[in-house]
Amino acid sequence: MPVLVVGSIAIDTVKTPVEEHSDLLGGSASYAALAASFFSPVRLVGVVGDDFPKSEFDFWKSRKIDAHGVQRVSGKTFRWSGEYSWDLNTRQTRSIDLNVFENFKPVLPKTYRHTDFVLLANIAPSLQAHVLEQMERPRFVVADTMDLWIETARSDLDALLQRVDLLILNDSEAREMTKETSLIKAGRRIQKMGPTHVAIKKGEHGALLFGEGDKFFSCGAYPLEDIHDPTGAGDTFAGGMAGYLAGTVKKVHFNDLRKAMIYGSVLASFCVEAFSLERLRNLSMEEVAKRYETFKLMSQFEVPPE
Amino acid sequence: MPVLVVGSIAIDTVKTPVEEHSDLLGGSASYAALAASFFSPVRLVGVVGDDFPKSEFDFWKSRKIDAHGVQRVSGKTFRWSGEYSWDLNTRQTRSIDLNVFENFKPVLPKTYRHTDFVLLANIAPSLQAHVLEQMERPRFVVADTMDLWIETARSDLDALLQRVDLLILNDSEAREMTKETSLIKAGRRIQKMGPTHVAIKKGEHGALLFGEGDKFFSCGAYPLEDIHDPTGAGDTFAGGMAGYLAGTVKKVHFNDLRKAMIYGSVLASFCVEAFSLERLRNLSMEEVAKRYETFKLMSQFEVPPE
Repeated sequence: MPVLVVGSIAIDTVKTPVEEHSDLLGGSASYAALAASFFSPVRLVGVVGDDFPKSEFDFWKSRKIDAHGVQRVSGKTFRWSGEYSWDLNTRQTRSIDLNVFENFKPVLPKTYRHTDFVLLANIAPSLQAHVLEQMERPRFVVADTMDLWIETARSDLDALLQRVDLLILNDSEAREMTKETSLIKAGRRIQKMGPTHVAIKKGEHGALLFGEGDKFFSCGAYPLEDIHDPTGAGDTFAGGMAGYLAGTVKKVHFNDLRKAMIYGSVLASFCVEAFSLERLRNLSMEEVAKRYETFKLMSQFEVPPE
Repeated sequence: MPVLVVGSIAIDTVKTPVEEHSDLLGGSASYAALAASFFSPVRLVGVVGDDFPKSEFDFWKSRKIDAHGVQRVSGKTFRWSGEYSWDLNTRQTRSIDLNVFENFKPVLPKTYRHTDFVLLANIAPSLQAHVLEQMERPRFVVADTMDLWIETARSDLDALLQRVDLLILNDSEAREMTKETSLIKAGRRIQKMGPTHVAIKKGEHGALLFGEGDKFFSCGAYPLEDIHDPTGAGDTFAGGMAGYLAGTVKKVHFNDLRKAMIYGSVLASFCVEAFSLERLRNLSMEEVAKRYETFKLMSQFEVPPE
């Protein structure tokens, strides 16, 4: 089944302690859509300017990513520039030019309105809600968010959470949102705000998943020795999760979410191996399957004798 | 098979943001020995003063902990006092009185000299080495260490590492020891310093295990909502690992170390639920087994349908 993905589409400049690259394809929806496309057809919603490369539309087409929901309007595409600290663990935004994104109102093509799985990738919660309002009761809604919205659009976010089945956020955001230092308490408290399921990303420490009752899952991160560009890892994680669910299951059980989280982690681990979407563009499903098996090996402790 | 445990035996005063308790049994060997005793007989080596409660010797006896290697000398027992930060993630030492520990030279009873499994719990690496020198080729040597020895006794530590099969240390210590920010690189680099296996503890984020070739295992921490006293968690983890190996396997394979790490994590998760050794004293093997099963549930992602 297809998954609808809405979020930002951007042109990025990224500086790490080692390299700097500009005019990179970026934005939450770009990463999430490509990650999801490994498992299911994607219906993409977003906005780009007239400077946006036509070749991306061709690429999306080649990957079963329907871009009828991507508005192409006059003006420049959203631009973001960021710089990472020496250990790649923190980053500073150097500049943001919203450009055509400033007046973006997602409009769903008629063919999108009935889509069972939705990923509201990271954009303002009011825009995320605006997408849901145009849909006929989706079966499973995944939403990603960030510190900016927790700080500046909390009431919009709280309203959105009532309509979300799985909220994805990172550890510092979960702590900020709940004022709890314990991630376990934070996850359980966020569930009480609306979402049945909560996934907390912990970067190099993996991720936690909270489900109904005391259902709980914890996974490590794939052991990468060299990371080139962390940009988009979280969006890729969310896209991998939502895509796996849409492509694989009809009714989502907790055990499906476990596997979805591993696939999200696998895709994210490839994402950071190169700048922008470069590694994901050249990634094969065989490589994904192989890393999934490695994940199994590295996290299971009752395995047959060597 | 029995495991020999050497380390400190102390009387602690511990202050958390919520409570303060004094005259608590503490020290790396106290925690490690009790944790190990869940899986195997223990041979304990340490030193106490004449103020040390006789009742502890009775307790050890009741738990198959042979205390013939604990010297009782005239003077006061080693005393430590520490205070935890608001989130229990960092602590400050308020005072240390080495007392009888100052001139401690471990002397192994003859009956201890042939012991296949050894845990060198956290004490100065020169003392750890002194224990090994008195032994007839142990089969598997586990050593724990801390930042103090990395900073002040690095050459002793480097020499010791040649004789260690499994080194256990925490994430900040692994980074300090190797000057690597990536824990994956740090673990691999420490292996090159001597130990075939390295376990890196990450507190609330679980632990990583590095083995021969590219063997790797990652586990989360048990999801505790309330922690009362983190003191001794690392020593308990090491004791649980070493005790499980000694009590269960003859020749240690990587898959045994995976399970050992889970049992270490299980014991540590109980340890922090109460001050000092109180929770471990009242813990049953059934509770250990149950939490082990929970660990399995929370970390496996290919499980039968619900």
